[in-house]
Amino acid sequence: MSDLPYDPDRLTACAAEIIATTRELSTLGWTPATSSNFSMRLDADHAAITISGRDKGGLTPADVMVIDLTGAAVNTSARPSAETLLHTQIYRRYPAATAVLHTHSRTQTVASRLFAADGVIRLKDYELLKAIAGHTTHETQLDLPVFPNTQDIPELVARVEAWIQADKPLYGYLIDGHGIYTWGRDMAEAERHIEAFEFLLGCELDLRRLQA
Amino acid sequence: MSDLPYDPDRLTACAAEIIATTRELSTLGWTPATSSNFSMRLDADHAAITISGRDKGGLTPADVMVIDLTGAAVNTSARPSAETLLHTQIYRRYPAATAVLHTHSRTQTVASRLFAADGVIRLKDYELLKAIAGHTTHETQLDLPVFPNTQDIPELVARVEAWIQADKPLYGYLIDGHGIYTWGRDMAEAERHIEAFEFLLGCELDLRRLQA
Amino acid sequence: MSDLPYDPDRLTACAAEIIATTRELSTLGWTPATSSNFSMRLDADHAAITISGRDKGGLTPADVMVIDLTGAAVNTSARPSAETLLHTQIYRRYPAATAVLHTHSRTQTVASRLFAADGVIRLKDYELLKAIAGHTTHETQLDLPVFPNTQDIPELVARVEAWIQADKPLYGYLIDGHGIYTWGRDMAEAERHIEAFEFLLGCELDLRRLQA
Amino acid sequence: MSDLPYDPDRLTACAAEIIATTRELSTLGWTPATSSNFSMRLDADHAAITISGRDKGGLTPADVMVIDLTGAAVNTSARPSAETLLHTQIYRRYPAATAVLHTHSRTQTVASRLFAADGVIRLKDYELLKAIAGHTTHETQLDLPVFPNTQDIPELVARVEAWIQADKPLYGYLIDGHGIYTWGRDMAEAERHIEAFEFLLGCELDLRRLQA
Repeated sequence: MSDLPYDPDRLTACAAEIIATTRELSTLGWTPATSSNFSMRLDADHAAITISGRDKGGLTPADVMVIDLTGAAVNTSARPSAETLLHTQIYRRYPAATAVLHTHSRTQTVASRLFAADGVIRLKDYELLKAIAGHTTHETQLDLPVFPNTQDIPELVARVEAWIQADKPLYGYLIDGHGIYTWGRDMAEAERHIEAFEFLLGCELDLRRLQA
Repeated sequence: MSDLPYDPDRLTACAAEIIATTRELSTLGWTPATSSNFSMRLDADHAAITISGRDKGGLTPADVMVIDLTGAAVNTSARPSAETLLHTQIYRRYPAATAVLHTHSRTQTVASRLFAADGVIRLKDYELLKAIAGHTTHETQLDLPVFPNTQDIPELVARVEAWIQADKPLYGYLIDGHGIYTWGRDMAEAERHIEAFEFLLGCELDLRRLQA
Repeated sequence: MSDLPYDPDRLTACAAEIIATTRELSTLGWTPATSSNFSMRLDADHAAITISGRDKGGLTPADVMVIDLTGAAVNTSARPSAETLLHTQIYRRYPAATAVLHTHSRTQTVASRLFAADGVIRLKDYELLKAIAGHTTHETQLDLPVFPNTQDIPELVARVEAWIQADKPLYGYLIDGHGIYTWGRDMAEAERHIEAFEFLLGCELDLRRLQA
Repeated sequence: MSDLPYDPDRLTACAAEIIATTRELSTLGWTPATSSNFSMRLDADHAAITISGRDKGGLTPADVMVIDLTGAAVNTSARPSAETLLHTQIYRRYPAATAVLHTHSRTQTVASRLFAADGVIRLKDYELLKAIAGHTTHETQLDLPVFPNTQDIPELVARVEAWIQADKPLYGYLIDGHGIYTWGRDMAEAERHIEAFEFLLGCELDLRRLQA
């Protein structure tokens, strides 16, 4: 029996899922220059997360570490990235969430800069909104917030918290000049969400160029 | 001898063609976030169609089901997607059609939004129009209709039917905020059509940006 | 000894080069929907050329036929495409040319439409102009003609001939709403030319969008 | 013992790193038409550099030559490209630099043309600025100079030298109508820098199109 505070088999399985997804998103060019990070929930109190600063195209299990939901490293000397707190916030606030993805595509960065002053991107009338959990029709609108960037991660956590406290639905968010955070009940749903947001943001940028 | 109302060998062959084509179109990024669906005619009364909600990059034969041309599931407990009726309409109205492709690329979605008010995109003076069946010169014009999106598929079916009843040629159509439907006498022709429409819509968007 | 009017070993080698190049250009998306054709000179009187209408991603030696420099099929019942005459014209007018490439990328098509009224695209001040044979500095200008499209290929041949007769340098040309023709002393040079023109046309389109 | 003025094992290792990086950047389309060159420092007096004019997708160790830091060929009859002096300048001026990358993407070329009159591109408020060595916050600005293009490489060297002499930080530079030079303490850092600059230039172009 393991003395670890988490199930090592669950860690092995989660690390494999994280590595596979990371490779896919890296191939799409959404993780430039060692940016981006990815995590999965291990249990009510722990998550597995990529160690920051690694090239996302060729991760191995050694590039995945365990944290508790306060963001502290567990059973490792690796130092979790400051942004880890944005992952643990999702796991604490949304008990059903088991995967959190943060990428950094050009479309995400450009959209965040363009809509930073508005603080939100309103997405509507797209069939692909149905790819976001809980949406069954395109006749809907989804508000994707754009928070100001800061190196003070607790400040960012507080902005996300304020949005949630205001009872506004939250399926993901952008950080200005930075990238996107989104999540899902499993890795497949999280991937569906990040693909859908990337697509919808790309359409919004194209339409803005075309309707100018 | 099989008691099935369709030829199981034909199903096996069609499923293989559907899977191969779906993988190609998925690699091109035209099936984001489990969107899109694909079918082939089995015989005068049946078709094989992808089960909705699956990731299109890694389909297996188990992700393909049989329907009759009223859109009802045959010999399976899988539930066909509502959009199935748009596939069966093509097989009923065009007896020579044996493959129907529905994708959801960013170019298709953006073009549909941009031309929704016009209800049609007129394509002309492109050499690649010759890739659409029955066109032997670029000195032609092809009207690609853009129908309003709705979750009420019979309403969409009626709009397509009205276009056909008006004796207007139909090689494919867009749905606003959604994607494209096109078809062919065999899978190779259907693929040629979808590649040509994607190309032509992309050119139209580029020219609009450049000639503004 | 072979009774063939050409060297069959040279044909085998040329077919292999054509197939490899075609696959590369197809992967780049420059040959949509069975468009485009490719050839290599076999000797002073013969060339090998792709049979039209084939999917360019998966050519085999059986998709390559032999023609003489009048454009007539040699030792085959395959019918050469009408555009064959544009290939043979290059081999007749430029004795050093051994490979002719014709592709159909979105950038090529859009540029051809945009500059059709001018009849020419003037390329200057690009370092990559040095990739075009005979250019040793970026302080140069290269005129790429844009000829009107027509299904009457002899008319196109006459337009190309008139440009050459006017003693204007010719490294390639666009056909309006269609694609590009370029060539080289060997396949590597022809590929370098087509990559350079694609790049330069893409830059011109980008700059036009940005400087509007 | 080797009579070579450099360590042949170090050359073998550097050639392997250069070939791997070159293949990656070539796959991204950043080395069109035999353009671009890449080098690594061997020791205080020598570097390994790609021989110019080769197709960057399929380099072998024979495509890498040794130079000294005056740019002269060492132990080879291969002639180093004129641009070699821009590599050796970096190794002489920045003793910690061990890899220099020069590519030629469409984004780099277009950005260089667009900002040539300004002589500089100011990058700020991007999280990805943290990918550039020495930057720990997005609340910074990085000036990427754009030097006029010339076939007179010593003139270019003098312009780079003047920038350094003026005590302005230098992490890379563009040459008008041409491409980018950047470097790093190891190949991984140089790659991170070139990916980051490509990303940031792409964002700048997109924002300029969108905010026009």
